[in-house]
Amino acid sequence: MSYTLAMSQLHRAMFGDADVLKLFSADDEVTAIVQFEVALAKAQESCGFVPVGTAEAVAVASKNLSFDDAKFEKAVAQDGVAIPAIVAYLKSAVGPAFAEHVHQGATSQDVIDTALMMQARSAVGLVRKNLAAQLATLTELLKNFGQRTLMGRTRMQRALPMTVGDRLKVWQHAIAQSEVALSQLVFPVQFSGPIGIGNDAKVKTLLAADLGLAVVMQSWQTDRLPVLALGNACVGMTGALGKIGADVSLMMQNEIAEIKLRGGGSSSAMPHKQNPVKAEILVALARWNATLLSGLHQAAVHEQERSGAAWTLEWLALPQMICATASAARLGRELFDSVESVGA
Amino acid sequence: MSYTLAMSQLHRAMFGDADVLKLFSADDEVTAIVQFEVALAKAQESCGFVPVGTAEAVAVASKNLSFDDAKFEKAVAQDGVAIPAIVAYLKSAVGPAFAEHVHQGATSQDVIDTALMMQARSAVGLVRKNLAAQLATLTELLKNFGQRTLMGRTRMQRALPMTVGDRLKVWQHAIAQSEVALSQLVFPVQFSGPIGIGNDAKVKTLLAADLGLAVVMQSWQTDRLPVLALGNACVGMTGALGKIGADVSLMMQNEIAEIKLRGGGSSSAMPHKQNPVKAEILVALARWNATLLSGLHQAAVHEQERSGAAWTLEWLALPQMICATASAARLGRELFDSVESVGA
Amino acid sequence: MSYTLAMSQLHRAMFGDADVLKLFSADDEVTAIVQFEVALAKAQESCGFVPVGTAEAVAVASKNLSFDDAKFEKAVAQDGVAIPAIVAYLKSAVGPAFAEHVHQGATSQDVIDTALMMQARSAVGLVRKNLAAQLATLTELLKNFGQRTLMGRTRMQRALPMTVGDRLKVWQHAIAQSEVALSQLVFPVQFSGPIGIGNDAKVKTLLAADLGLAVVMQSWQTDRLPVLALGNACVGMTGALGKIGADVSLMMQNEIAEIKLRGGGSSSAMPHKQNPVKAEILVALARWNATLLSGLHQAAVHEQERSGAAWTLEWLALPQMICATASAARLGRELFDSVESVGA
Amino acid sequence: MSYTLAMSQLHRAMFGDADVLKLFSADDEVTAIVQFEVALAKAQESCGFVPVGTAEAVAVASKNLSFDDAKFEKAVAQDGVAIPAIVAYLKSAVGPAFAEHVHQGATSQDVIDTALMMQARSAVGLVRKNLAAQLATLTELLKNFGQRTLMGRTRMQRALPMTVGDRLKVWQHAIAQSEVALSQLVFPVQFSGPIGIGNDAKVKTLLAADLGLAVVMQSWQTDRLPVLALGNACVGMTGALGKIGADVSLMMQNEIAEIKLRGGGSSSAMPHKQNPVKAEILVALARWNATLLSGLHQAAVHEQERSGAAWTLEWLALPQMICATASAARLGRELFDSVESVGA
Repeated sequence: MSYTLAMSQLHRAMFGDADVLKLFSADDEVTAIVQFEVALAKAQESCGFVPVGTAEAVAVASKNLSFDDAKFEKAVAQDGVAIPAIVAYLKSAVGPAFAEHVHQGATSQDVIDTALMMQARSAVGLVRKNLAAQLATLTELLKNFGQRTLMGRTRMQRALPMTVGDRLKVWQHAIAQSEVALSQLVFPVQFSGPIGIGNDAKVKTLLAADLGLAVVMQSWQTDRLPVLALGNACVGMTGALGKIGADVSLMMQNEIAEIKLRGGGSSSAMPHKQNPVKAEILVALARWNATLLSGLHQAAVHEQERSGAAWTLEWLALPQMICATASAARLGRELFDSVESVGA
Repeated sequence: MSYTLAMSQLHRAMFGDADVLKLFSADDEVTAIVQFEVALAKAQESCGFVPVGTAEAVAVASKNLSFDDAKFEKAVAQDGVAIPAIVAYLKSAVGPAFAEHVHQGATSQDVIDTALMMQARSAVGLVRKNLAAQLATLTELLKNFGQRTLMGRTRMQRALPMTVGDRLKVWQHAIAQSEVALSQLVFPVQFSGPIGIGNDAKVKTLLAADLGLAVVMQSWQTDRLPVLALGNACVGMTGALGKIGADVSLMMQNEIAEIKLRGGGSSSAMPHKQNPVKAEILVALARWNATLLSGLHQAAVHEQERSGAAWTLEWLALPQMICATASAARLGRELFDSVESVGA
Repeated sequence: MSYTLAMSQLHRAMFGDADVLKLFSADDEVTAIVQFEVALAKAQESCGFVPVGTAEAVAVASKNLSFDDAKFEKAVAQDGVAIPAIVAYLKSAVGPAFAEHVHQGATSQDVIDTALMMQARSAVGLVRKNLAAQLATLTELLKNFGQRTLMGRTRMQRALPMTVGDRLKVWQHAIAQSEVALSQLVFPVQFSGPIGIGNDAKVKTLLAADLGLAVVMQSWQTDRLPVLALGNACVGMTGALGKIGADVSLMMQNEIAEIKLRGGGSSSAMPHKQNPVKAEILVALARWNATLLSGLHQAAVHEQERSGAAWTLEWLALPQMICATASAARLGRELFDSVESVGA
Repeated sequence: MSYTLAMSQLHRAMFGDADVLKLFSADDEVTAIVQFEVALAKAQESCGFVPVGTAEAVAVASKNLSFDDAKFEKAVAQDGVAIPAIVAYLKSAVGPAFAEHVHQGATSQDVIDTALMMQARSAVGLVRKNLAAQLATLTELLKNFGQRTLMGRTRMQRALPMTVGDRLKVWQHAIAQSEVALSQLVFPVQFSGPIGIGNDAKVKTLLAADLGLAVVMQSWQTDRLPVLALGNACVGMTGALGKIGADVSLMMQNEIAEIKLRGGGSSSAMPHKQNPVKAEILVALARWNATLLSGLHQAAVHEQERSGAAWTLEWLALPQMICATASAARLGRELFDSVESVGA
């Protein structure tokens, strides 16, 4: 088995969403980090809090970022976060005139939280595109097969006949509701300083505007509302698709044969089989995100002004939830696209 | 140890919220169930779907509900749900003229889901009262102690000095946000019939109005959005209070002594100790709800038109989450009320 | 919905195991608590650590235990645990000559942990009886139906034909392995004192022998190995039965009809249906225990010599896991007993 | 934030254990996969089930394994697992004389489960080395500081004085017990064929011997005992270290100062701070594994002879648990190595 299915050459074709994984690569994380530092310098310069020229100096320095890997890893191994090492690099790159104004008033958590929101906003955008495609395909399927008869089943027993449309509309509604939840997420900037008691409102507003993020005046360094809302929306979506995956697996049973898919997985031992691979993975991803969600909410118990342990737990859980959500969105789209017929 | 802390005479004084537990007693569940059946008959009669007199007959029958316990338990043991037994009782009680119109067009899940929403709405109302009291006490504490100095601490190390108000405002904001989330919950009626393909919109609307619930036209028999939103709001609130509980436990450490509480737990072995019992339980309830939340979202994977296994899992998790939330709301209020001073 | 399915008159016929619930009632918890105090006095008296007559005095006092409920609840509300109130009661009941020797060298956690192990050992005994009955019935089913053909299915698709016996043996092996795991559990006494640094080995040994528990010399006040092992064994068993429940639900699908059960749940709306209620609940209980297990292991993070928050979280999770395990053991037995035929 | 802390250049210096991550790389997974196929051919050839020369042919083919990445990814995207593509490659490489004897009697799950056990066994070996080092360092710390006084603390309040040795022995015992649990794990071969009804016992035994794995005669394709036992042992170990991490964080509080560490994390905003980074991460990893454990046990509910959805969920959870365990083992060792003094 590979450490992560999404990143392994052996599994990623099925599990990973390459675009979203790229957003959560170290490269893209560094890009977001330096975007924060540049935008901060700009905002502070335009408020007169740092000398004229700071923003330009930071921008130039950030373009030529190059780390001595060994030195960098040693710094991270000591500090637990990469920000002090990156800030030290920028300070040295801008030279003594501006050094003290790099990262001014900010703390590591400001940078990481903000970078996370930038990454998450982009990822959610990609997810929503896949959901829109799913909804379009479902509309098509409804038109083509909606009038056909389907046996309504409850508690896994035949209940009463209904139409294919009756079931597809339930799917459609659940996906549409997930999409609404994702569309209503707020991605705020974090700029709250070392003990979270805030920073200049104008700088925060300019910074947010520059980075395309929202402003919430209160620090969310310990009150992780935006993060929990994001996790909740992710699991809502994978849950909706997990239900659909379970339905498709049941509909594909040979004796029931209520749905026909193009393609489908083959078996190393039984060439005659056609496995509902994508449907199964949607179930697995739903349960995976439901698992991770617990960790995300365990991470809500921050101590005092900023917590190391709780925040780290969030880092472990959240990116995986977002990427699982993206994989589910892609697989769901592919699954719907592969439907040859529903009902009889 | 007792099966549930909330219900055991040995533990409930600390863990249970009596009012909310009563809402989730068998008696109150039966009350909600028959309210549904009465309101349904009324709504259908006013739409002309059942004979004049049905509503009155069901209402009368529901008032004299009396079960043969042994017979009832046997029925439940067979059917898995109590509704068929209750409906059979009502049918027999209204007599042959109306029997076929009792529970007309409804299924067990309609009744149980609707009763759940009635119970949940009342429980959330009680929770919100405790949160309002908490916010009032915090305002008082802010007035009395907000100007005092407090050491800001990050990663459990002294960081920079700030004021007591700086920390209390973080607490206040988190509680206020939880309250907002609870206030925005929607509690819909369920009336979707045996395979969830809906029922007369007018009956549904009248039914909802009678029971004080919201209307969503689409069935939520498998798309458990209202249930998941409720769980998310519960864990959001207990998480916010769990953070505060962790803070208070840390502030009460003897060498740090940043907060003084009245009362507090004694020890069977060390009479000199004063244990921050309520603060600790707030942490435990936060982690408990974060645990249960995972089960609630595992229960999102319903099969086909209605799932037995997933729905049962929801039953196991959700009432416990609501009751834990209510306990936390009460304990949080008591904890704030017991604050003698904060900071120095 | 009711607060706990296992205790509600509306649901317990399906969900509760009455015998195991009784073991985790407040009454039985108090009984176990006073058994500890009596056995401790006896052990200490026989070592000469308390005056002759102490054991007798505690034994007599413990027989006439009667609490003023209001006073008792007030004490619990303050201390968070019931032990100080019970110990105070015993001290007063034995009179000044022996009062200081009641609970000597013990702390609340010693009593509660030990009582828990007494309750758990009895519960596991009951569970194992149901597993033995399951295994006997499976042997019978194997004899009667083992030679019949059954379609082997993988990834929910027809794979290759096999025999009914092939599948039943998998069930049997999983149950047998669960039984082995339960049979190997160790239930140790706790007698480690206020800060866990141990107590007289001879007293501990006598105490354990008197209560029918094992001895581990090292305190397990924070190293919750026996508790975690118990939880792991519980979830192992419910997982094994959950797999069987999933199989039975799939086998009972109308088009597949690989198993016939006697009885089975009826529907309030569709009298023709026969729902695989017990099989579904086995799935739900497997997922419920898998959910709770996470909380139990979150509770492993104890602080310092004894933790309030972590220990409380354990209280919330563990008794529920044990009772869910007992319910599953009973339902599994009933499910196997109801099998009319398997295969064709 | 990066998708996985363990693999990101930005975080791995703190979170990853390079050796164990390598074991769970795609390269090492492929290596284990082909080792299985080679060993299988050898075992079958020595039993006379495949023509003489098969083993040699497979061994040669496996050495020159080279995939057309695009073609390979396409195959995986279709089948959900990589084995059919790898087997097809080997079949073509050995030529028509032996092709039908490659992977004979095996199914994808046999290969993946066996490879997983090979990877896990090696990983556990590395973890145990770090635990042995931890225990050695603790012995040293006990010798140097064990006699010093330490305040015993319960419920986060000062309780009674004890020695540093009293606390260190609790740590030591918990780690030693974790080590015992890991040392008792059984890593069995899987060779059960497409529907799990087993295969030749002699082939299985030879195969296991060749790969250094254990033999269990019953298929564990759906009864995931070895996997669950592995997960339980992992979370037991990270829980033990999480408790120690929590203790160290509390001991390092400035006002309490019961432990002194060399090194320690710096802050981007407050250069005077020394953050207990490794201790915090141990807490986070304990909670992370407790989170993932739930998913692993959710994955116990396999359907029929082999489940796609449940198995996939296991893939998502288990490698991450093992790698988190390895990271904790390394960080724990580094933490103990960095102790300058304990107590006063």
